[in-house]
Amino acid sequence: MKTYIILAYPNPDGLCYAAYENVKKGLEARGDEVRVTDLYKEHFDPVLVFNKEKLRRNMQSDSEMKPYRDNITWADRLVFVFPIWWGGMPAILKGFIDKVITQGFAYTFKGLLPVGLLKGRTAWIITTHDTPPLFAALFRQDYGKILEKQVLAMCGIKTTRRFTMGGTKRSSPEKRKKWLNSIYDYSIKSGN
Amino acid sequence: MKTYIILAYPNPDGLCYAAYENVKKGLEARGDEVRVTDLYKEHFDPVLVFNKEKLRRNMQSDSEMKPYRDNITWADRLVFVFPIWWGGMPAILKGFIDKVITQGFAYTFKGLLPVGLLKGRTAWIITTHDTPPLFAALFRQDYGKILEKQVLAMCGIKTTRRFTMGGTKRSSPEKRKKWLNSIYDYSIKSGN
Repeated sequence: MKTYIILAYPNPDGLCYAAYENVKKGLEARGDEVRVTDLYKEHFDPVLVFNKEKLRRNMQSDSEMKPYRDNITWADRLVFVFPIWWGGMPAILKGFIDKVITQGFAYTFKGLLPVGLLKGRTAWIITTHDTPPLFAALFRQDYGKILEKQVLAMCGIKTTRRFTMGGTKRSSPEKRKKWLNSIYDYSIKSGN
Repeated sequence: MKTYIILAYPNPDGLCYAAYENVKKGLEARGDEVRVTDLYKEHFDPVLVFNKEKLRRNMQSDSEMKPYRDNITWADRLVFVFPIWWGGMPAILKGFIDKVITQGFAYTFKGLLPVGLLKGRTAWIITTHDTPPLFAALFRQDYGKILEKQVLAMCGIKTTRRFTMGGTKRSSPEKRKKWLNSIYDYSIKSGN
């Protein structure tokens, strides 16, 4: 299979980065072709601009975003790896969604009904968060659900795997190792 | 009262920008002191970076973010004006939250319990979105709720006003005028 990994994390020494490395290693070990966009490393500019001169409806053919669209078109599977900050994605990933997942490329409308244009693809969503358990239970909005249910689903992409590492700051080295191992194991074995 | 408006919208010809102009005009007409951060106009960089050299825990005293922290400290009321894209804030506003609303400045922890450090302030949240009504009903996550309940509430800031303009693309000129008038009227009259 062809997998496109999108990583949105600034610290090569952090757990989220290690999660990315493990998923990549696992996928390559099973023989997947893997492409990666490390948004921080390539200084992705997440600010979507439109106005009278630069129309939003032309965003689907924006030439700067073409390499990302091409990777999505190429892939059978998308893997998103990111930390949860304030309940949701880092700005750099939100801007990737705002600028790349455009009408005409990722979805269209038939009357009022949206139609996904990226059908047949699957997605994995791998996240970390530091919310204390009590607040994770109370603060239930998003935490990766918006990407799954309000973005990818609209484009026809089915999320087949969610992997959440919670309470990361207080987690023991053993717990972290267990998380990383199970990400690797899943990546090397799983169907889609 | 002292009001700090944070605007996250790129198009000076759009409805969201007109909403900002009306809230500002109304607040000034009632005698409020008003400060504005137009994130697009000042090319705010929303990308939060931390790593081994640049520790996340020092973000609360980041000198580049000081003017924004100072405006928040100065204000009695915050007004956020932004469009809903993919259910949530534009990346440029998400990054403002990620970089400015920091532990030690906006909240702290007593044991596992967060304590808001910005108590006594109120907030208004003014948003636009284009989601067709059927999907707005199905896609219920966020749409400004995360800012209200998962960000501002944690800092001790009470949201006293939500103003939502939905289905903006299909809205009539009369409908838009009515929205803008009621934003102006509310801004000139309301208590907090």
